Amino acid sequence: MTFQYKNVYLENTATIAGPYEAKGPLAKYFDVTFDDLYYGEKSWEQAEAKMLEDTLELLLQKSKTKKENIDVVISGDLMNQITSSCYSNLKNHIPFLGIYSACATSVEGLIIASNFIDGKKVKNAIVATSSHNMSSEKQFRNPTEYGAPKPKTATFTSTGGAAFLLSNQKSSVRVESATIGKINDLEQTDPLHMGSVMAPAAADTIYTHLKDLNRDISYYDLVVTGDLGLYGKEILIDFMKEEYQLDISKHYNDCGIMLYDLEQQKECLAGGSGPVCSALVNASMLYDYLKSGKFKKILWVATGALFSPQMVYQHQNILSIAHAVSLEVAGE
Amino acid sequence: MTFQYKNVYLENTATIAGPYEAKGPLAKYFDVTFDDLYYGEKSWEQAEAKMLEDTLELLLQKSKTKKENIDVVISGDLMNQITSSCYSNLKNHIPFLGIYSACATSVEGLIIASNFIDGKKVKNAIVATSSHNMSSEKQFRNPTEYGAPKPKTATFTSTGGAAFLLSNQKSSVRVESATIGKINDLEQTDPLHMGSVMAPAAADTIYTHLKDLNRDISYYDLVVTGDLGLYGKEILIDFMKEEYQLDISKHYNDCGIMLYDLEQQKECLAGGSGPVCSALVNASMLYDYLKSGKFKKILWVATGALFSPQMVYQHQNILSIAHAVSLEVAGE
Repeated sequence: MTFQYKNVYLENTATIAGPYEAKGPLAKYFDVTFDDLYYGEKSWEQAEAKMLEDTLELLLQKSKTKKENIDVVISGDLMNQITSSCYSNLKNHIPFLGIYSACATSVEGLIIASNFIDGKKVKNAIVATSSHNMSSEKQFRNPTEYGAPKPKTATFTSTGGAAFLLSNQKSSVRVESATIGKINDLEQTDPLHMGSVMAPAAADTIYTHLKDLNRDISYYDLVVTGDLGLYGKEILIDFMKEEYQLDISKHYNDCGIMLYDLEQQKECLAGGSGPVCSALVNASMLYDYLKSGKFKKILWVATGALFSPQMVYQHQNILSIAHAVSLEVAGE
Repeated sequence: MTFQYKNVYLENTATIAGPYEAKGPLAKYFDVTFDDLYYGEKSWEQAEAKMLEDTLELLLQKSKTKKENIDVVISGDLMNQITSSCYSNLKNHIPFLGIYSACATSVEGLIIASNFIDGKKVKNAIVATSSHNMSSEKQFRNPTEYGAPKPKTATFTSTGGAAFLLSNQKSSVRVESATIGKINDLEQTDPLHMGSVMAPAAADTIYTHLKDLNRDISYYDLVVTGDLGLYGKEILIDFMKEEYQLDISKHYNDCGIMLYDLEQQKECLAGGSGPVCSALVNASMLYDYLKSGKFKKILWVATGALFSPQMVYQHQNILSIAHAVSLEVAGE
């Protein structure tokens, strides 16, 4: 399902990034970075919620607007019951919609917000997401075996908060189109190789997007997935060639790889993951590239492994989904 | 944030209800009921997913339409990673948006779908939800202490699947308006008294809805919350009087109470809960009442306790939210 928009603009973004992300090549593009994974709180869960709360506050400050002027916040994260989204949004008391699409959550939010704005249901919307390496490790690998060896195909949950202010008021970057993905099952069962789980979902959504809009991959300066990692990236390139006879390699990168210096940051394994991973990359460097005109058109394809520990214990396959949004320099 | 709609219709519903619900007063209104909580599957989680999958299939059959004709499915449930929504939606391969708003999930879905349809972004949408007494008990009270005594204020997670087909094509019932709620914190901490947690959120949303549309409570034949239970219902009535000088008692009931015969079904304690609770009541009896013209206007206020076990372990308050949707006989 692909939409095209006439009057949806990306008015501003805000990013707060954690210690591993601050050591990566995108550090200079983040609004705020911090060193302590506890972020001054008593638990990782409360750290993640506070970090996202601060991201929302920062977005309002940067945008010189008040919470009373925001029509709706759409937010989701990896924590069970999307806890950090709920707790971070309490004080602002803005109408709130909770969403969940694993690491594709950010773009799901952007699509809902864009449909609301382009359909004249709201004037503006904030879309937000977060993830936290430790709260995720604790939740998904409990009882925690942190430090146990992992295969090099495993990804590393990114720590940070990212928020986007969308509006019907003209600004330099616009949301041009978007595609809602479908749930895929390629009978993958390895939670330590999410790149292979998610690549087919990314392929399906990229193909659908290009077909629905009758576009060639070269329409975009860059197609970025988030977050397949080193091995998933190669799988996607191969899969697109074999399944759809499409060579995307010249126009394509993955946010999980872009966020870190994987040669130096060995602890990040095959690359970043978590809903904030691709959100951090797009809300910082890529947003800057669009504002400065360095890039004109970016297709952000957020990929989510619909990974349920309960279903993995019960020997069920890991499902995946990908949602895509096209960000363009306005007026192009 | 309140919306009014011109061309959003409730084309059909489908309901599958579990053994406790089949013993309640609404049994005759459900499409399908079943006796075995395992629903022929190997686990409660798989039972919940299969039940929701069958509900979606039943909705397509009843509506005499094919999955290829559906623009988007919007679904959420109580399981971590909204597992039953994801697994139940796999085979249909329809564009999918996952949502989470605890027991307010159903109405959040109806609002997103209605905004999409009224804003001419899609022609139709399916909104679905489920809950399962055992998968919820296991998840939220693990290690399970099933059978341990509970206070009479505790609610009982309902078992079933409910799905709604919304469309821009005229039919006998329409979605007339809706209100997105805000996150509330009244410093409640008792997970065995969710009625008191959620009543203030329901009050806030009902008040906002009536104020935004300049309506009196008597505009509606019935206002139903879902799911405050016996004690939460009384709290809401008192709270509306004290806080807003509004007497809602003559026009108001709660789906958690309506779904069971609480005099006979003592195991259901203060009443039903779970996202399917109010969805079952509205998709079955109340939808029939609207189709037959017995009721002309219903305001369905779905209430969600944004209950995170992690945050309760860490002595944080339990937050709540409520979303409202107005269902009316079309043409009125």
